Amino acid sequence: MEARPMPKFMDVHHGMHGVTPEALQAAHQADLDIQDEEGVDFPRAWGDPGSGIAWCISEAPTIEAVKRIHERAGHPATEVYPVPVEV
Amino acid sequence: MEARPMPKFMDVHHGMHGVTPEALQAAHQADLDIQDEEGVDFPRAWGDPGSGIAWCISEAPTIEAVKRIHERAGHPATEVYPVPVEV
Repeated sequence: MEARPMPKFMDVHHGMHGVTPEALQAAHQADLDIQDEEGVDFPRAWGDPGSGIAWCISEAPTIEAVKRIHERAGHPATEVYPVPVEV
Repeated sequence: MEARPMPKFMDVHHGMHGVTPEALQAAHQADLDIQDEEGVDFPRAWGDPGSGIAWCISEAPTIEAVKRIHERAGHPATEVYPVPVEV
């Protein structure tokens, strides 16, 4: 495990049934467009059209910063968890 | 979106309260030790000691292959979801 300068978070979004690659890309881009304003980086997201769940990993100064970006982008996260442990 | 040769999955493990980097690494290594037997690749996992949740991304021929590796490694996944959409 290396030292990391910024905490990481895993957020979970529900209700995205039938999500397409284009829709997830558009939602992700809406985050990317404003993420610098809170010092957040969203490198990747995954979606399951069947269960309607999407997961998004982020690096951010605080959990509140992650939540604010998603809210302002129009898709508040259902849950956001710190993930200080990574392998 | 690029074409991918193998489906990806996100699995969720509950009950890992207080998980340490060493414990997650040991659990992950137990998967890595046998993943080739089912053609599965587990590139990364994240854990939250507070909620006791861990997430693991994988590439695998089937969802059953992912489940079998985790079961045989001693930590069956609480949930496994296909994630055909990734950005």
